[in-house]
Amino acid sequence: MARPKNAFYAQSGGVTAVINASACGVIETARKYPETIGKVYAGRNGILGALQEDLIDTGKESDAAIRALRHTPAGAFGSARYKLKGLDQNRAEYERLIEVFRAHNIGYFFYNGGGDSQDTCHKVSQIGDELGYPVVCVGVPKTIDNDLPYTDCCPGFGSVAKYVATSIREAGYDVASMAATSTKVFVLEVMGRHAGWITAACGLATEQAGEAPHILLFPEIPLDQKAFLARVKEVVKTHGFCVVGVSEGIRDLEGKFISDSGLRDAFGHAQLGGVAPVIANLIRSELGYKYHWAVADYLQRAARHLASKTDVRQAYAMGKAAVELAVKGHNAVMPTIERISDVPYKWKVGKVGLAEVANQERMMPRDYITADGFHITAKCRRYLSPLIEGEDYPPYRNGLPDYVRLKLSSVKKKLNKEFKP
Amino acid sequence: MARPKNAFYAQSGGVTAVINASACGVIETARKYPETIGKVYAGRNGILGALQEDLIDTGKESDAAIRALRHTPAGAFGSARYKLKGLDQNRAEYERLIEVFRAHNIGYFFYNGGGDSQDTCHKVSQIGDELGYPVVCVGVPKTIDNDLPYTDCCPGFGSVAKYVATSIREAGYDVASMAATSTKVFVLEVMGRHAGWITAACGLATEQAGEAPHILLFPEIPLDQKAFLARVKEVVKTHGFCVVGVSEGIRDLEGKFISDSGLRDAFGHAQLGGVAPVIANLIRSELGYKYHWAVADYLQRAARHLASKTDVRQAYAMGKAAVELAVKGHNAVMPTIERISDVPYKWKVGKVGLAEVANQERMMPRDYITADGFHITAKCRRYLSPLIEGEDYPPYRNGLPDYVRLKLSSVKKKLNKEFKP
Repeated sequence: MARPKNAFYAQSGGVTAVINASACGVIETARKYPETIGKVYAGRNGILGALQEDLIDTGKESDAAIRALRHTPAGAFGSARYKLKGLDQNRAEYERLIEVFRAHNIGYFFYNGGGDSQDTCHKVSQIGDELGYPVVCVGVPKTIDNDLPYTDCCPGFGSVAKYVATSIREAGYDVASMAATSTKVFVLEVMGRHAGWITAACGLATEQAGEAPHILLFPEIPLDQKAFLARVKEVVKTHGFCVVGVSEGIRDLEGKFISDSGLRDAFGHAQLGGVAPVIANLIRSELGYKYHWAVADYLQRAARHLASKTDVRQAYAMGKAAVELAVKGHNAVMPTIERISDVPYKWKVGKVGLAEVANQERMMPRDYITADGFHITAKCRRYLSPLIEGEDYPPYRNGLPDYVRLKLSSVKKKLNKEFKP
Repeated sequence: MARPKNAFYAQSGGVTAVINASACGVIETARKYPETIGKVYAGRNGILGALQEDLIDTGKESDAAIRALRHTPAGAFGSARYKLKGLDQNRAEYERLIEVFRAHNIGYFFYNGGGDSQDTCHKVSQIGDELGYPVVCVGVPKTIDNDLPYTDCCPGFGSVAKYVATSIREAGYDVASMAATSTKVFVLEVMGRHAGWITAACGLATEQAGEAPHILLFPEIPLDQKAFLARVKEVVKTHGFCVVGVSEGIRDLEGKFISDSGLRDAFGHAQLGGVAPVIANLIRSELGYKYHWAVADYLQRAARHLASKTDVRQAYAMGKAAVELAVKGHNAVMPTIERISDVPYKWKVGKVGLAEVANQERMMPRDYITADGFHITAKCRRYLSPLIEGEDYPPYRNGLPDYVRLKLSSVKKKLNKEFKP
């Protein structure tokens, strides 16, 4: 019998609270098929690890360490913001990948990322065939942006959603306490430059009239300053305080990013970033209210301490399903999450061809946003609500989450040449 | 037998994740002494509620609702940033307080706040005696700033400490994943304008060499830009990435707040606030590293979802002890937390006279900060570590923390005059 082919797993793009849960699913499942899959190598810093022949032998990690990936945020093997160009533009990169795969007897490629990564994964399956070294390529969906098509939701998003909804509810309680004599307006900036999924998730905190957040500013809706300020004023008049959730990617009526609105420090340095301070300052200048603002940034996507149990399960399931699809002989596919029902929430694992999923963005439907553009609809709530269900607390040590650090043992190089990506 | 006197409870200043746990301790304990304490009235929006005769009858709240205060962040009755002036400067305010207390048969005053509030509490006990209407005044310590003297720590601080240490650890895992191709520096801004206790708490996340945070910027240590930038460079060289925890209150070598360093938006509006973007931008301008930054702001002090169990217990214990002190006939005192041992952590309830505690700030000892000024010492860790011990999760509903909203029934006014504070 032929020696089983090894597998290569890589994490790609911005990391999440649960991408390691997918890694856990891939590695634990691969360990169940030793006759089909040999070693599982991980790329150090994502796809760069393959290009630079910098492979990590996950076989050197104990079962306990791999199990702990399930409750550890971020990318344990390192991720990369590195998009392979088209085959025509940089064929050498793809050839190098296949060369490294061949040298290490790698026959399976599991790529854990968003749309760009699924595109790369698809191209690798094509070039392998072309070069006479076929590789089974299976994508593992991941993105806090929730913008992959053909899957009901994306692992990583549910936990960010739970974090921002919880945080804005808590801040709402805080501001409500302070509003009589002090802070009347609170602005929380959240991620999601192109699609408003994360901003929408803030809206889950509003279960009764008057509860925070009172206003959401979506990247899909150009900011009408006048209408916005009028709404803030009305909310403060009615409820005594106003909490605003704002996407980092909102634009003005001319389509210009608000975050690029010329913020400069004393030294003239431009673009500090941060939409929340701009919005907060606008409110103070025009309405005079005392404000506070927060920018959650990486805290929101790294917050494994508040992960959604649904999200953790789905992230693990996608890693597991990717390996099972490969073992069953599927190629150039990505497992997906298919919703069966909203209440009670039921879902199952599906799959889609990489050719279909690559380089498409799923935008938020317009009817998920209220007609006035400032909040979410019941339909949106029905979609989002199950994704934040359940808690999945990590273990704690010395009062802090006990996250794992892997050994990350390097695999001996076999090729005698460097590659500069 | 005389009708028992009623009690007045008020929340003061910036709220915390556990100030309601103290309220819970006050109300539940008072309900155990119906022969000594009649009703417990709470001030709507803190002391303003007394001045404006706007009292809330906590007796209308169910036992379950009061119990739920223990897991609900912020000030359920409303807090106020309102400092009573000195007796000489505004005697009318104190006289008004006594007038309202007399009208509602209030003989106990429990004031839940920081240094200023303990000062007010002390003055009320004096003026009551002077005006022939003695009031038993007991302070309940509260401040995330951890700067009250005579108590080993302050309820509210431990939970912020746990939040910032957890958050900066999580962000550290994130940046470590991304550093090869993207973000190399992450800056988290935390509260604590005068004392570096919260900044120090970030340091608890560093348990092994190289773990985030790598650098802390304390309000106690003037920012030496050159030394700071050299350290950032060194950390990135050694570990590949650098995580910085910075106090909102850091100053430059001339003593000027960094947050006041002339930040202006496109419209020329000054002082957007935010030290993190200034520090991040400084790093990019001088060293060229890609950065991300976060400003936790209210999220950190409202984060009941990640409260320290030690902190929750102490907050409750302070409320309970305040009532017990009053019942035993003590006056013008504040219960305190006395540390018995670090490991295992043991503490007991003590007390201190309000005359001693009023208007003093407890600064962080210099030997809690390393000689180079950029991290915490083992001594500091020994002090801080027990304060973040244990988790005390709130119940969840629909994927979100299920915090209580009280009925807040108003007590009928008895005085026929308005009071404009």
